[in-house]
Amino acid sequence: MAFSQRKLTVFCLLLLINIFFSSTGVSADLPSWNNTSTKSAIVSFVKKVTQEGSSDFVPPELRIAVFDNDGTLWAEKPAYVQLLFAIDEIKRLAPEHPKWQKEQPFASILKEDFHSLLTLGKADRLKIISTTQTGMTDTEFNRVVNSWLTDAKNPLTGKPYRNMVYQPMHELLEYLRANGFKTYISSGGGVDFIRALSMSFYGIPPEQVIGSRFKLRYEDDDGHPQIITTDKLDFVNDGVGKAIGISQVIGLRPIFVAGNSDGDLQMLEWSTSGKGPRFGMLIHHTDSKREWSYDSGSKVGHLDKALKAAKLYGWTVVDMTKDWAVVFPQSKVTTPEKEISETPVEDGG
Amino acid sequence: MAFSQRKLTVFCLLLLINIFFSSTGVSADLPSWNNTSTKSAIVSFVKKVTQEGSSDFVPPELRIAVFDNDGTLWAEKPAYVQLLFAIDEIKRLAPEHPKWQKEQPFASILKEDFHSLLTLGKADRLKIISTTQTGMTDTEFNRVVNSWLTDAKNPLTGKPYRNMVYQPMHELLEYLRANGFKTYISSGGGVDFIRALSMSFYGIPPEQVIGSRFKLRYEDDDGHPQIITTDKLDFVNDGVGKAIGISQVIGLRPIFVAGNSDGDLQMLEWSTSGKGPRFGMLIHHTDSKREWSYDSGSKVGHLDKALKAAKLYGWTVVDMTKDWAVVFPQSKVTTPEKEISETPVEDGG
Repeated sequence: MAFSQRKLTVFCLLLLINIFFSSTGVSADLPSWNNTSTKSAIVSFVKKVTQEGSSDFVPPELRIAVFDNDGTLWAEKPAYVQLLFAIDEIKRLAPEHPKWQKEQPFASILKEDFHSLLTLGKADRLKIISTTQTGMTDTEFNRVVNSWLTDAKNPLTGKPYRNMVYQPMHELLEYLRANGFKTYISSGGGVDFIRALSMSFYGIPPEQVIGSRFKLRYEDDDGHPQIITTDKLDFVNDGVGKAIGISQVIGLRPIFVAGNSDGDLQMLEWSTSGKGPRFGMLIHHTDSKREWSYDSGSKVGHLDKALKAAKLYGWTVVDMTKDWAVVFPQSKVTTPEKEISETPVEDGG
Repeated sequence: MAFSQRKLTVFCLLLLINIFFSSTGVSADLPSWNNTSTKSAIVSFVKKVTQEGSSDFVPPELRIAVFDNDGTLWAEKPAYVQLLFAIDEIKRLAPEHPKWQKEQPFASILKEDFHSLLTLGKADRLKIISTTQTGMTDTEFNRVVNSWLTDAKNPLTGKPYRNMVYQPMHELLEYLRANGFKTYISSGGGVDFIRALSMSFYGIPPEQVIGSRFKLRYEDDDGHPQIITTDKLDFVNDGVGKAIGISQVIGLRPIFVAGNSDGDLQMLEWSTSGKGPRFGMLIHHTDSKREWSYDSGSKVGHLDKALKAAKLYGWTVVDMTKDWAVVFPQSKVTTPEKEISETPVEDGG
């Protein structure tokens, strides 16, 4: 026997200690958050709801945390990433659609008329999105999005989108999960677009993504059924819709909820006015040096009413300048953590 | 020191062995299933998709299992439980609604005219359900359902509904979860009704229940927002709707899917025709002694097309008489495993 009994004992004890600590989640913390009152508020909340026997204890099945995506989990400038993707798709698909050269809003995209693009109305934005993101199965769409993500870069920073995820929020998601929370996204963006990247970007599986959606159609296709996303809008997950979307899909009021704009107001109001301990978080984009500084004056991420409501309801306002030691991941994140599309199982459609 | 080094080593090794086996889920098995080819098929499937390195391995985040409810997880005779609940509610609420004595379908219910009740049309069934199950928040509705469940009994067997859950299916849900599956319900019944009992009856949290639903309305109510279920039907989760509902909520094709009627046909077809290993299960009610024997001749749980499709697609047909050693729990199950409504957190609304 190569091991002495003493060595075996030490080895067993170390293994047990390791198993114990890896299963309690104590290793997850919030290194990119400064030691401000914001971080203390998060940690105190999580401690009180996870402490068995405490009057504020919340059982794991009710620890639901919901996050807005654009401007809360990743950057939303110069425009929502889904719209930037759609614009790139129009360019990629243009050779097959010669009439787009003269048809709006496609013509503006192909001419790279940025001024027109930044002032697109709702109908035009919807047209661009339905043209590029409907009429196919989830599986087909996942492939297109993930192929785009391989090379696409934010036009203002030149960084891949994976590196435009807020590092402190990534840590917060992991910290909550390590403490038994189930983390969800509730976005005004299209559910299919976010589902295509939610696992690899945020560790959030597709079934924990709620978003705006088009109607779905079942096609038999000779014994090989498929579900096709049609171009008919079904549900807009914004404002009041965000509270309704959560109620529809989750059936519970979240106890932790985070957003950054007036589109998140009702989701925050509804979630934090339930009984028992609640945590409302509002990301305030104050950092013009490391990110962008904006709130009530901005079309994308307009924040005014929700900032006033924060005082009334006692939500925690994250001041990016003061509360975040780091905004974006500091090393280049190139390897996807996990790509669902690489598995042997077809993931959608 | 009370322990000798040898005793400490043995203790550590035993603890490690215990931790190892409790984390692999090998303790969960299927005692109420007879040792037939059906049980072997289930166990082989679960083994191959959970074996790392195997070409059939499916990562945990894709191990989605979806179950129909009525006739698959619990008994559906003499009528769907939700309808029996609604009938009891009409009786309970009748004193506040004197006009119901002369208004159909309420009058038939109050006269206990069972012949009329068993032949109710879709519109009348919907009227009974919307009258008793809309116009309130989830939280209020949860309370009503759970109060009813305390005393309610199946009119044919006299058993509480908790004892009308199929014991082998309860074990199957636990077996799948112990092997890393996420278990869902997809029912033609109302999502709110099933969510009110899914955790205590099946260990399935409300966010893993998909069902038919009414439209929801957000009400501000002077800074105390509430979400009210309206009486306007929003989505019927049946037939093609079951495949669409899963795609909408989960965004993935399940790899394991179980049903018992033609209403489950498209859900089974769509799920099992995805790439990679798939398991389709059809519960065939063959047992007139311990339960009821029915299929193509039955209005509730009509099974004809799906039984033919089972051969074509290679689904496993569960013959209740042959495959199940036990149908219902043998001891009276009276203590709820877990009641969400007892927690300090408001669970819905």
